[in-house]
Amino acid sequence: MASLQGSNIACETRPLVLIHQWSSSNLNFNDWLQARFRLLEPNHPAFPFLSKSCRALVCVGAAPLTSENLRQYPSLELVVGTSTGLDHIDIALCHRSGVKVTNVGNAFSEDVADYAVGLYMDVLRRISAADRFSRTGMWPVMGSYALGSKLGGKRVGIVGLGNIGLLIAKRLEACGCIIKYTSRKKKPDIPHLFYANVSDLAADSDALIVCCALTKETRHLINKDVMTSLGKNGVIINIGRGALINEKELVDFLVRGEIGGAGLDVYEDEPSVPEELFGSDNVVLSPHRAICTPESMAALQNVVIGNLEAFFANKPLLSEIKFE
Amino acid sequence: MASLQGSNIACETRPLVLIHQWSSSNLNFNDWLQARFRLLEPNHPAFPFLSKSCRALVCVGAAPLTSENLRQYPSLELVVGTSTGLDHIDIALCHRSGVKVTNVGNAFSEDVADYAVGLYMDVLRRISAADRFSRTGMWPVMGSYALGSKLGGKRVGIVGLGNIGLLIAKRLEACGCIIKYTSRKKKPDIPHLFYANVSDLAADSDALIVCCALTKETRHLINKDVMTSLGKNGVIINIGRGALINEKELVDFLVRGEIGGAGLDVYEDEPSVPEELFGSDNVVLSPHRAICTPESMAALQNVVIGNLEAFFANKPLLSEIKFE
Repeated sequence: MASLQGSNIACETRPLVLIHQWSSSNLNFNDWLQARFRLLEPNHPAFPFLSKSCRALVCVGAAPLTSENLRQYPSLELVVGTSTGLDHIDIALCHRSGVKVTNVGNAFSEDVADYAVGLYMDVLRRISAADRFSRTGMWPVMGSYALGSKLGGKRVGIVGLGNIGLLIAKRLEACGCIIKYTSRKKKPDIPHLFYANVSDLAADSDALIVCCALTKETRHLINKDVMTSLGKNGVIINIGRGALINEKELVDFLVRGEIGGAGLDVYEDEPSVPEELFGSDNVVLSPHRAICTPESMAALQNVVIGNLEAFFANKPLLSEIKFE
Repeated sequence: MASLQGSNIACETRPLVLIHQWSSSNLNFNDWLQARFRLLEPNHPAFPFLSKSCRALVCVGAAPLTSENLRQYPSLELVVGTSTGLDHIDIALCHRSGVKVTNVGNAFSEDVADYAVGLYMDVLRRISAADRFSRTGMWPVMGSYALGSKLGGKRVGIVGLGNIGLLIAKRLEACGCIIKYTSRKKKPDIPHLFYANVSDLAADSDALIVCCALTKETRHLINKDVMTSLGKNGVIINIGRGALINEKELVDFLVRGEIGGAGLDVYEDEPSVPEELFGSDNVVLSPHRAICTPESMAALQNVVIGNLEAFFANKPLLSEIKFE
């Protein structure tokens, strides 16, 4: 591994950065970080003593960073997350320990918003399903494929109106959708109708787009009661985290036709996708890739390097998250 | 058939309307037209003499209405088309004969614009392809699916900036795309950059979205020269008519990787879809269904009935096309 090359890791002048990741991760962070930083991974021979003095850590992808992990690094001052949501990091402990935490800020927001809209269009207009229909040669046989449903006029309930939610709203407004939302609190200066309760939002919406952070409070926020409120023509799009939805109940509702359809980029037990849905034409099943563009990957590099460089230069961090 | 029920077709007071369609059409126009009009189809026993006095004709779907057909109806004053493009109707002869022609106006425009954007998102972000990847259980095996490409910042060349083209532009601007266009002539009061030549537009674009009318002049407008100008990362979306593109050359360019991808709703020889593309992940193959929503079907009924009622009441037609 490039980060282990040479024996002078303790002597170099580049700042030392802990890399915390699954061994199977293929995000190749080392390739672009090592030009600027000395990288210390748990399998490095010098790890046991160098890690004690490390001030900054990069948490790659969704590798869990637990209280047990954090207690191994007594000098830690900064955790650099590489995603928008940081539910895999023990943020409460970081807060109590005075460790600052950064996420990717808005680096992924546009791509995720586009993908949410793409999934919703796909479910409503049945694009993936119609593509399957064409590829299997069914058009000349069947004559036509089932109708979809028009985007314009749909009442779309956005669950979590942060930066991504606002970008989704902007896109769907251009298509004539009516935007409503729920969030921890009503946003000032936002014209869209606010609902304090997600079930009330669902009852007044044709679709829910789930893009809030996963916390103890939002885990299984979308459950059978919310889906019952949404109703049998309702569509659910999830580009947040799998556990925001009770997946077993979602699958039951889809299989029984008790909601209209779903576009899912995230799942409770990734990379497992519920096999019960593999034959369904009213779902689009995406393998957690709403951020997967070269442009987002470049933006990720910029914000991770920017946060680390700012930290070591005692400058303001680019995307520090606020503890609440 | 409901329109043939009873023997009093010549005696009723409802206005008489010729129905011109393929026998295999499943658009069920009769069901909703016969409440207001007497419908006369070619297989009706009274057709030979009643057709001579018919003043209005509904041309269902893409059934060709040729000069030979038109000459059978000497009293014809109105042809009601049921699509946006009327390339299947001999409009020049209608013009010379003083027969007015209506299309569906803007009844389908929003749905077609949404579908164009949906196809473009799908090709760029590889949504259908990633859905196939998930459904075949490849995610746990392969770890991840290939990157797509970001929508924001893409230079999108719209070929034909009519009502549909403008709605596409509005949607893609909300996603951060840069809109350019070609059209018969530069549009006043349009901020987007105009190109007189489609090859020049292609050379300055990351994607072409083809949504112009099919005429003698636009047949095979998108050919190998245009595709060469567009380049190997370029994407083509076609929601206009299949023959706007030289399909054989398009397939060659896609198979050889000389353009980046395509989202096709229309084909030169429908319902045939080029089988060479069935295995390609950089294309989305849709069976001519950009208008296929219940909302568009309802809007179609309204505009067809509205045009017929206006005609028989000597009022202005809702969506008369202008001869140029």
